[in-house]
Amino acid sequence: MSVLVVGSVALDSVETPFGKAEGVLGGSATFFSASASLLTPVQLVGVVGSDYPMQQLEPLAQRGVDLAGLEQADGESFRWRGRYRHDLNSAETLETRLGVFSHFRPKIPAQFRCAPFVFLGNIDPRLQLDVLEQVERPKLVACDTMNFWIESRRPDLLALLERVDLITLNDAEARQLTEEVNLVKAARWIMQRGPRYVIIKKGEHGAFMFTGASVFFAPAYPLEEVFDPTGAGDSFAGGFLGYLARTGDLSEANFKRAVVYGCAMGSFAVERFSIARFLEIGPMEIAQRVRDFHRLVTFEEDLDP
Amino acid sequence: MSVLVVGSVALDSVETPFGKAEGVLGGSATFFSASASLLTPVQLVGVVGSDYPMQQLEPLAQRGVDLAGLEQADGESFRWRGRYRHDLNSAETLETRLGVFSHFRPKIPAQFRCAPFVFLGNIDPRLQLDVLEQVERPKLVACDTMNFWIESRRPDLLALLERVDLITLNDAEARQLTEEVNLVKAARWIMQRGPRYVIIKKGEHGAFMFTGASVFFAPAYPLEEVFDPTGAGDSFAGGFLGYLARTGDLSEANFKRAVVYGCAMGSFAVERFSIARFLEIGPMEIAQRVRDFHRLVTFEEDLDP
Repeated sequence: MSVLVVGSVALDSVETPFGKAEGVLGGSATFFSASASLLTPVQLVGVVGSDYPMQQLEPLAQRGVDLAGLEQADGESFRWRGRYRHDLNSAETLETRLGVFSHFRPKIPAQFRCAPFVFLGNIDPRLQLDVLEQVERPKLVACDTMNFWIESRRPDLLALLERVDLITLNDAEARQLTEEVNLVKAARWIMQRGPRYVIIKKGEHGAFMFTGASVFFAPAYPLEEVFDPTGAGDSFAGGFLGYLARTGDLSEANFKRAVVYGCAMGSFAVERFSIARFLEIGPMEIAQRVRDFHRLVTFEEDLDP
Repeated sequence: MSVLVVGSVALDSVETPFGKAEGVLGGSATFFSASASLLTPVQLVGVVGSDYPMQQLEPLAQRGVDLAGLEQADGESFRWRGRYRHDLNSAETLETRLGVFSHFRPKIPAQFRCAPFVFLGNIDPRLQLDVLEQVERPKLVACDTMNFWIESRRPDLLALLERVDLITLNDAEARQLTEEVNLVKAARWIMQRGPRYVIIKKGEHGAFMFTGASVFFAPAYPLEEVFDPTGAGDSFAGGFLGYLARTGDLSEANFKRAVVYGCAMGSFAVERFSIARFLEIGPMEIAQRVRDFHRLVTFEEDLDP
């Protein structure tokens, strides 16, 4: 089954302690697609400017990312410039130029409107709501958001929450949205406003999935070399929804596996600049990373300690 | 099998967003003993002043903490006063009065010298080394340390590393000791200097155990109410070594379970001030918490995704 993603398609310029990349592929929809397409067909909706190096998206198209919903508009592409310091924990944004993205109005192509899985990347909640008007009863709708929308579009974001099955957000955003320091309470606050599933991402500290009364946790994989954290969250979402769409299994056991696939894909994202690592790996590497996760966290219970 | 702990026995005054406690039981050996004694007999070596409320240790003694190595000296007990802000992440030390602890020279009673498991709590590495001169071929020696000793007693600490099987330290301390930001590299640095096992504690973000080429991770339990983080690390160590001593099984599978018991005991520690929670719980609550951990992290691998 395919997954529809609506989000940004950008050009990133990133500086880390390990090197620099200028004008490389970035944006939430790009990372999501590069990750999810390793597991299932992807339909991408976004906008780029006339300066976008479209041929660099060719490897994604060949792998099953349908770019029919990627509009190319007159003007500049969305550009982000950022820097990570030694600890790689948080990006310092040096420059954001929205370009054609500032006028983005997602138009879902007719052939995308029946997508069973939908990911509303981190864009204006009004646009996320607008996308939901254009699609037909997906099996699962997930959204992401960020501090900027929590602050500036709170009523729209709350309206969106009523209409999504799942939200992914990071710990700081969960605290900001709910005004709860405790993440268990924050997740409950959110679930009371709509989503049946809340995934709280903690970056290098892993991710929690809350659902009803249960909670599941998967760590970030302890890599020896973290090269560039950009896009890890969207790659997580791509792995998570890509796995659900691939299997079509919405059981709790499968949601847990999907979280692990999300963490696995996030761990690949940070091993290279941009989406480079996703262009090197295939099913073998993914299966191996998931097995590594299993070994990382699995312990046998003792029945009579 | 019993476990010997050498460390501080203190009186803590703690302020959290949820309340205040004045002059309550604290110190590394106290938290360790309260935790470990729920699993196995404990032998405690430490020093208190003439002002110490010895009768408050009675519940621990009744539970199998042998206090024959707890010296009562003329003078004031070690007192620590600290405060946690809203996020409970880090303690702000308001006052430290070492009292009789500043002249502490551990004397291991003859009947303690054959303890198969030894925990060298966070004290001067010279004293930790001195303890090792007094004990007879333990099965497993573990130590803890802190930023102060890493800075002021580096050569002694490195000499200690050569003689311990395992070290527990937090992520900031691991980075400080090794000058490696990456925790995988930091752990390898430490293992190259002696310990076969390195446990890096990340507070609310869980704990890694590194051993040879393998790594195991257990999260901190996502509690709805974290009341007072004081002593969580020593309670972790108590659960970890207490479980190893109880089972006497030094297999890798059992070390993983021991990490989970450590995390379970750490999660109890933070639910009340001081050691109060350990005086309320028993085998049932511990087994339940370990089962909760299993549910929290366990996923079934898909053999054919």
